[in-house]
Amino acid sequence: MPTEINVRVLLKSRPTGFPVEDDFEVVESPIPQPQQGEILLESMWLSLDPYMRGRMNDAKSYAPSVDIGEPMVGGAVAKVVESRSPLFNPGDIVEGRFGWQSYAISNGIAVRKVDESLAPVQTAVGVLGMPGLTAYFGFLDVCDPTPGDTVVVSAASGAVGQIVGQIAKIMGCKVIGTVGSEPKAKFIVEELGFDYAINYKTSDVAQSLDNLCPEGIDVYFDNVGGIVTDAVMDRINIGARIAICGQISQYNLKTPDLAPRNLGLLTRSQAKMEGFLVFAYESRYDEGIARMAAWIKEGKLKYKEDVVIGLKNAPKTFIGMLNGENFGKTLIKVAE
Amino acid sequence: MPTEINVRVLLKSRPTGFPVEDDFEVVESPIPQPQQGEILLESMWLSLDPYMRGRMNDAKSYAPSVDIGEPMVGGAVAKVVESRSPLFNPGDIVEGRFGWQSYAISNGIAVRKVDESLAPVQTAVGVLGMPGLTAYFGFLDVCDPTPGDTVVVSAASGAVGQIVGQIAKIMGCKVIGTVGSEPKAKFIVEELGFDYAINYKTSDVAQSLDNLCPEGIDVYFDNVGGIVTDAVMDRINIGARIAICGQISQYNLKTPDLAPRNLGLLTRSQAKMEGFLVFAYESRYDEGIARMAAWIKEGKLKYKEDVVIGLKNAPKTFIGMLNGENFGKTLIKVAE
Repeated sequence: MPTEINVRVLLKSRPTGFPVEDDFEVVESPIPQPQQGEILLESMWLSLDPYMRGRMNDAKSYAPSVDIGEPMVGGAVAKVVESRSPLFNPGDIVEGRFGWQSYAISNGIAVRKVDESLAPVQTAVGVLGMPGLTAYFGFLDVCDPTPGDTVVVSAASGAVGQIVGQIAKIMGCKVIGTVGSEPKAKFIVEELGFDYAINYKTSDVAQSLDNLCPEGIDVYFDNVGGIVTDAVMDRINIGARIAICGQISQYNLKTPDLAPRNLGLLTRSQAKMEGFLVFAYESRYDEGIARMAAWIKEGKLKYKEDVVIGLKNAPKTFIGMLNGENFGKTLIKVAE
Repeated sequence: MPTEINVRVLLKSRPTGFPVEDDFEVVESPIPQPQQGEILLESMWLSLDPYMRGRMNDAKSYAPSVDIGEPMVGGAVAKVVESRSPLFNPGDIVEGRFGWQSYAISNGIAVRKVDESLAPVQTAVGVLGMPGLTAYFGFLDVCDPTPGDTVVVSAASGAVGQIVGQIAKIMGCKVIGTVGSEPKAKFIVEELGFDYAINYKTSDVAQSLDNLCPEGIDVYFDNVGGIVTDAVMDRINIGARIAICGQISQYNLKTPDLAPRNLGLLTRSQAKMEGFLVFAYESRYDEGIARMAAWIKEGKLKYKEDVVIGLKNAPKTFIGMLNGENFGKTLIKVAE
């Protein structure tokens, strides 16, 4: 039995606009005790993802809000330290939605054993977990790519975007990524093999797209929304496919942003725009994990992590990620 | 050989904003002579459709612009009055893109013989022609309806909308139509069998949708765009399908309209939005015509025409239609 205390990050108040650290409260509690059928988990890696911003709101969404005073939700990789369930043994490494806390109790539902032979265990909340599977199914299924397609990915060095772009290259596509810094631009081209990068903070995105893809755009995988989307929409080809994965540019606005009404472009281009959630593909997660694990072993798929140590740093790291300060998949290293 | 003159309506200038009658020029010319392989056609019915507004612009679109000084494009039902083609005989009734003119020459390409046994011949540019086929394929294929779905159709008494709503009822859906007048509202409910109508000019569309479809919206067939679309988007269900057929509210704006950025709603709802053109379904036109002709004979599918006599009235009738002054499918009766 561990003797330490349980560090938990609770939602203290609902932000308007950008969250601030004071919207969170870090508390220390005794380590909980598992009941019959339950397991006690020690968190190793906590994933920080943009969707969590939505959970801080009290608005209708695809998942319930976090209640004030409750721990923030989130996927984590954890070690079973005590088991009163026949399904798990102490020492098992598992992945599940254990929240922003160093210890958690689970009844084992929606808890997945991590295959440690595939890749470092934290990939179970990264490339071989929710963000990677989002990229895999969102690109291959929603975007229905064909070799030779010109593909634009926004937030291209992020947890999802970096995987989308590399799968697009594996598929034989031409890939342009939009990013928010020069190091990210250099990274996606030189390390990940994207054809081109556009720094949306320093470039005219529309002009850059004209220069880099004069043949138009066949696929757009969108994590960002806003002006990048406007520029892409003006350049879609006949039969274009647009996957709306995220809209991080819109999550922290105090007043709604306005856009040109451009749905007529979908008609002119006979194009399809689809929003998706990775959960729709749950029955095929094993396929996605096996395929991506093989690509990793073959050196065809790389992943970049942005690791911050210590759960107490989760609030400021999360806020930084919403500002685009992360460089790669954002992870909190909770414990060894 | 007819002895009359050929009345033609030419594009005189490209409108900015709403077209005015002075953007058109009505001219009289000699009747043209067919060459070997050609046919001479006397126009009977000219179809006026919102897409023609796009052809008046000099902007990139899915079809070429009309050149200044050339006759406006448009589908028409015509009679073959002279044939130098082995494929057609004098007296044949045909449908094709013969333009805004009382006589036309054709080489027979993309000219379809009209089956006079199905319905009155002018339906070949109405319910059994481009607008009806747009409704048939756009609703059944793009919207993929299921019995019990709640369906919203904009411009619901128009050439396309009236057919969409009735096919939705045949499919066992709940159907709400948006229209711009009380007579139209009464008509689509009492004559066409829609469940409800919303007059967008006199009602709060959002509030009306809340009242009429508290269970949310599964399918939206959009001919209009703008604020109707905004209100629908806020109420789409998981797995909603949205067909972007037209955006008539946007065709005559001098400055682009702005909309709330709401693509995140597609993600939350795992919804799909697709723009389409009926031409993509050309290989299946016979299916659509046969199915709709049978529904007409069975009394399951009605169609309302708004007929104006005389080609010289085409410009002002067209402008009126863009203003929503038509009530049903707009047709110019060119000749008997």
